[in-house]
Amino acid sequence: MTDDPVRLGLLGAGRIGKTHARSMAAIEGVRLVAVADPDEAAVAAVVQATGTRAASVEELLGDPAVEGVLIATPTDLHAGLIERAAESGKAIFCEKPIDLDLSRAERAVAAAARCGVPLMIGFNRRFDPSFRRLRDEIDHGRIGTVELVQITSRDPAPPPMEYLLRSGGLFKDMMIHDLDMARFLVGEPIVEVTATGSALVDNAIGDAGDIDTAVALLRSAGGRLCVISNSRRAAYGYDQRIEVHGSKGMVAAGNPVATTVTRADRTGFATDPLNDFFMDRYADAYREEMAAFCAVVRGGDVAYPDGRDGLAALALAGAAARALAAGRTVEVPQPDNDS
Amino acid sequence: MTDDPVRLGLLGAGRIGKTHARSMAAIEGVRLVAVADPDEAAVAAVVQATGTRAASVEELLGDPAVEGVLIATPTDLHAGLIERAAESGKAIFCEKPIDLDLSRAERAVAAAARCGVPLMIGFNRRFDPSFRRLRDEIDHGRIGTVELVQITSRDPAPPPMEYLLRSGGLFKDMMIHDLDMARFLVGEPIVEVTATGSALVDNAIGDAGDIDTAVALLRSAGGRLCVISNSRRAAYGYDQRIEVHGSKGMVAAGNPVATTVTRADRTGFATDPLNDFFMDRYADAYREEMAAFCAVVRGGDVAYPDGRDGLAALALAGAAARALAAGRTVEVPQPDNDS
Amino acid sequence: MTDDPVRLGLLGAGRIGKTHARSMAAIEGVRLVAVADPDEAAVAAVVQATGTRAASVEELLGDPAVEGVLIATPTDLHAGLIERAAESGKAIFCEKPIDLDLSRAERAVAAAARCGVPLMIGFNRRFDPSFRRLRDEIDHGRIGTVELVQITSRDPAPPPMEYLLRSGGLFKDMMIHDLDMARFLVGEPIVEVTATGSALVDNAIGDAGDIDTAVALLRSAGGRLCVISNSRRAAYGYDQRIEVHGSKGMVAAGNPVATTVTRADRTGFATDPLNDFFMDRYADAYREEMAAFCAVVRGGDVAYPDGRDGLAALALAGAAARALAAGRTVEVPQPDNDS
Amino acid sequence: MTDDPVRLGLLGAGRIGKTHARSMAAIEGVRLVAVADPDEAAVAAVVQATGTRAASVEELLGDPAVEGVLIATPTDLHAGLIERAAESGKAIFCEKPIDLDLSRAERAVAAAARCGVPLMIGFNRRFDPSFRRLRDEIDHGRIGTVELVQITSRDPAPPPMEYLLRSGGLFKDMMIHDLDMARFLVGEPIVEVTATGSALVDNAIGDAGDIDTAVALLRSAGGRLCVISNSRRAAYGYDQRIEVHGSKGMVAAGNPVATTVTRADRTGFATDPLNDFFMDRYADAYREEMAAFCAVVRGGDVAYPDGRDGLAALALAGAAARALAAGRTVEVPQPDNDS
Repeated sequence: MTDDPVRLGLLGAGRIGKTHARSMAAIEGVRLVAVADPDEAAVAAVVQATGTRAASVEELLGDPAVEGVLIATPTDLHAGLIERAAESGKAIFCEKPIDLDLSRAERAVAAAARCGVPLMIGFNRRFDPSFRRLRDEIDHGRIGTVELVQITSRDPAPPPMEYLLRSGGLFKDMMIHDLDMARFLVGEPIVEVTATGSALVDNAIGDAGDIDTAVALLRSAGGRLCVISNSRRAAYGYDQRIEVHGSKGMVAAGNPVATTVTRADRTGFATDPLNDFFMDRYADAYREEMAAFCAVVRGGDVAYPDGRDGLAALALAGAAARALAAGRTVEVPQPDNDS
Repeated sequence: MTDDPVRLGLLGAGRIGKTHARSMAAIEGVRLVAVADPDEAAVAAVVQATGTRAASVEELLGDPAVEGVLIATPTDLHAGLIERAAESGKAIFCEKPIDLDLSRAERAVAAAARCGVPLMIGFNRRFDPSFRRLRDEIDHGRIGTVELVQITSRDPAPPPMEYLLRSGGLFKDMMIHDLDMARFLVGEPIVEVTATGSALVDNAIGDAGDIDTAVALLRSAGGRLCVISNSRRAAYGYDQRIEVHGSKGMVAAGNPVATTVTRADRTGFATDPLNDFFMDRYADAYREEMAAFCAVVRGGDVAYPDGRDGLAALALAGAAARALAAGRTVEVPQPDNDS
Repeated sequence: MTDDPVRLGLLGAGRIGKTHARSMAAIEGVRLVAVADPDEAAVAAVVQATGTRAASVEELLGDPAVEGVLIATPTDLHAGLIERAAESGKAIFCEKPIDLDLSRAERAVAAAARCGVPLMIGFNRRFDPSFRRLRDEIDHGRIGTVELVQITSRDPAPPPMEYLLRSGGLFKDMMIHDLDMARFLVGEPIVEVTATGSALVDNAIGDAGDIDTAVALLRSAGGRLCVISNSRRAAYGYDQRIEVHGSKGMVAAGNPVATTVTRADRTGFATDPLNDFFMDRYADAYREEMAAFCAVVRGGDVAYPDGRDGLAALALAGAAARALAAGRTVEVPQPDNDS
Repeated sequence: MTDDPVRLGLLGAGRIGKTHARSMAAIEGVRLVAVADPDEAAVAAVVQATGTRAASVEELLGDPAVEGVLIATPTDLHAGLIERAAESGKAIFCEKPIDLDLSRAERAVAAAARCGVPLMIGFNRRFDPSFRRLRDEIDHGRIGTVELVQITSRDPAPPPMEYLLRSGGLFKDMMIHDLDMARFLVGEPIVEVTATGSALVDNAIGDAGDIDTAVALLRSAGGRLCVISNSRRAAYGYDQRIEVHGSKGMVAAGNPVATTVTRADRTGFATDPLNDFFMDRYADAYREEMAAFCAVVRGGDVAYPDGRDGLAALALAGAAARALAAGRTVEVPQPDNDS
């Protein structure tokens, strides 16, 4: 409590980097000592909001006082920065995905392991209070053995085409979060994946070879099932719900609401649409995620999604894409010791 | 209103037959003139409750005053009775499935068509007030173009093994209702089916070559998706929910409740479990279904699930079973003019 | 079960009488043997729907086979018919209120007591499944000692002025049901009443010396509180809710809904308005009420609102009116042995 | 945006003072320059958490750089500090109640008016997002003319007896918040108050001449009604709900929940209890309240509860106490120009 503060550096001052910087500012015992980004205006905004200072990547990684780094750059820089940070001995938090290429991602994860530094991947949904509670309820045996997990995950609207074209496709860009939640909740290694999908929201997405509406079926080693449904469109807002059915019962998590207000008139009862921005939907989760990373840097005994989790989700996304292309169930290659 | 009553006969005085008889008794302008069943006690109970009289199948079908028949016998008698009733010129209501064998079912449907009699199949869920409203909302354009249908359908507990062994398996016995709902709501012919499943509830079910937990993915001609999840087990009661997502919004139907009572104490808020018996869950639907059949017999312009619907659901159930066995997406053979 | 059926007569073939006749027709072991009403068309409709026969009041009360009567006439005939039926030795069900004049009502109740016949008053809400469950939860000690009861009771729209002018005013006509529910749930004699009210919905109501919006506060012998809020207007339908707060927790009952359908679009989530007709809102309650009266006639050990309950609710309505007029808390005269 | 920061001082470093200090720290463009409190440990905690400095009341009020002060001391110091801060020309935020004695409170409010400084009273519930929305919906005409407001306000458990004995009683200590909400939502001056109450939770409260369960009825100049029910006990947590019924419909605000998780098993469906601490229940409201005060200090055009609101709520609390004591409806003295 009265120890020296944890000292962190931020690589990448874009939207998510700035959010993490603000979260860190509200956590006691943590200091953001520097931020690096080629975009000077973005850096200036973070400096203004948090009182940190600008630095180059070299300076930041070379500063022995910096104990951990947050990698919030474009995806294609993730793997290289993980390796450099690992060699500098820093604890690492990296946004998902590690890399669109699985073997490139594997090399980065291996580097962190070789250097003995913690590598936490930005699967923020594991820190959403309601989803976290689903896992707790399962762990406490409240629903018996897990049998079927149903994940509904819908974005309000598709991202811009230029983003989509470099995103790696729906499975790696969007469903990867849900695939991680499936692993988080199913409780057994996933061994088979089946998928179907369509471009229904925007023809341009189909023309680009991608899909915007998809369902994936996962099957675990012990026959547990998981169904994930995704859409890039939900007129009523960002819709993220999970149900876990077990031998003794069910737990479900719904969408948080901005107000509890109900209106009633001649036409019926009405409540507000959902948040239409993921950073509002998961505001609590982002804060909790940063608190967890601080605990990781301090060496605390805290559960977090690590490099293997990042690889496993990526492998599932790849399997789903192959299953869709082949029109058949695909086996998921298992690592030697998947947890 | 002041016309002669519609005169109907009941073939089969078991649980569902008796329910239909009682529903008919509450509808104005309908008279149940006779009931036939080899089980004399069952016949006596229906006679007692409704004031109808016992008859043989021959008498009933040979009575020119009988305008329509309800076939509520064991499944293996359905097809033969459809054919005999059709030849007698009766309007026909037959419980699902028409037959476990698709080609046998096709012959029965063809007989009804040839004889020019209406053939209504007992897909009672189409008459559930909430599911019916989903269709109405779609038809009125409230959610735009349908993109994704999610059907959750769980029984409280598996039926007895002797029933299961002769049931035709989960797809034909249980999911067939959901497959019909998919056709009812997707709004386009289903052209592809994928499926996965496990025996998680009871090992005996797996030993018998069946499953008790399953998910099927359907894809329509225009790329619309439908996911159906089934389980033979739901500790909290009979759970039947549907969501339909479209380009402009969503409509969802949940489970009715027996009371609106909430209790709150130190441990939180609590409400009752769901109905644990399908005949309670669908009590309204069964009544509405009989009212619709009466309207059909009267020659009214009323929508109802007909022989082709019965065959199509059976074909989808067969396709799902083949998809599961093959581990791949299966094309659904299309009739010449599926509606 | 195999005994002779209970034989009942119906006095009054208006809206509520016809409803009771239909409820009776659906109960096994009950026969409606005759209906009496000066309105021949109304009688004919009941005869047509249930197969009973028309009779005069004299014939009906003089028929020794008739064991019980349902009094569903205009209010000003209730007391006299209770006395005549009591002298004929019939079990009696009478719609509320017994009479607008408390002493006239007392004489009728006394007559039933003197003749030793059961007298059940039509407080149908006691038979609503959700309100009934509130009482059961209290009786089972689930919320500890009752401390505060909150009753919200709103009609969709005021009745016609000609009805209102003869209704006895909001307290005797509308709040009387809620006053009975208060007695049903508070669990102690009510000793004090305070009230306030306004004519906000329709100036004509105020001009006639009545109110359309009112709140009454009740206080029991042991200091338990009950608040009843009434309005003759609720744009979203018939709104009837109750909360009971106790030392260990709370139980609440809400409004039933016609469908479980939710729609969601850009503007938010929407569900249907409530029932806008009390006979739909309380359809289950009316059926259960008739079943209870049949049990009473059969001599079964069944709880029901009796003559003293009818008098007590009437006394509370009178006290509320006096409290409003005087602008002060009014003591409620206690009978010798109120239960 | 790029202006000098607003400079504030904090008088009182107890629980609520510390909360306000933290809220201020998260608002851009605000600086807490000093904190004064005789309790050195409390001051040290605020200094540690926010980086402000300790000062005496004299220093703080004498510092010309301080533009506004937050008065978060014990109630009996409020009025004197309002007067001193007003004479020093500071904008003032003061926790409720201004004083337990209405005439003492009036002198303090008059001092602020005479000195021309803004005086904001800590009716935090006006800043709760859901309650704020009720007012917005009313202001936008969504429910027509307000007819009836129902406020349910229950604490999880009574405060310690030593607190209660100096609190001024339930009406001034607890219901005062609800009386302010009534004024906020009814939309017309309250002219009459009726009340009833009991000591049901703890006999010691009754022995001390106070009550722990109460209902008050308010009536506006135009006949609009408001009912407030209070209890010092709610086993399931801090329960704060409001319904506003109008000529065209209704708006209602419920309780926020910590997670959206539902559990279902053989016994039914369950969700968590409510927050059991008012500072968690109103966390958002406290933040919004501080943001509003900053806007007030900056001279922005922002609605806030002012001195007259503080006096009016106090006058209503006094009227409710007199109504309870007298057992009759009490007229509320109207100021010359209550808004």
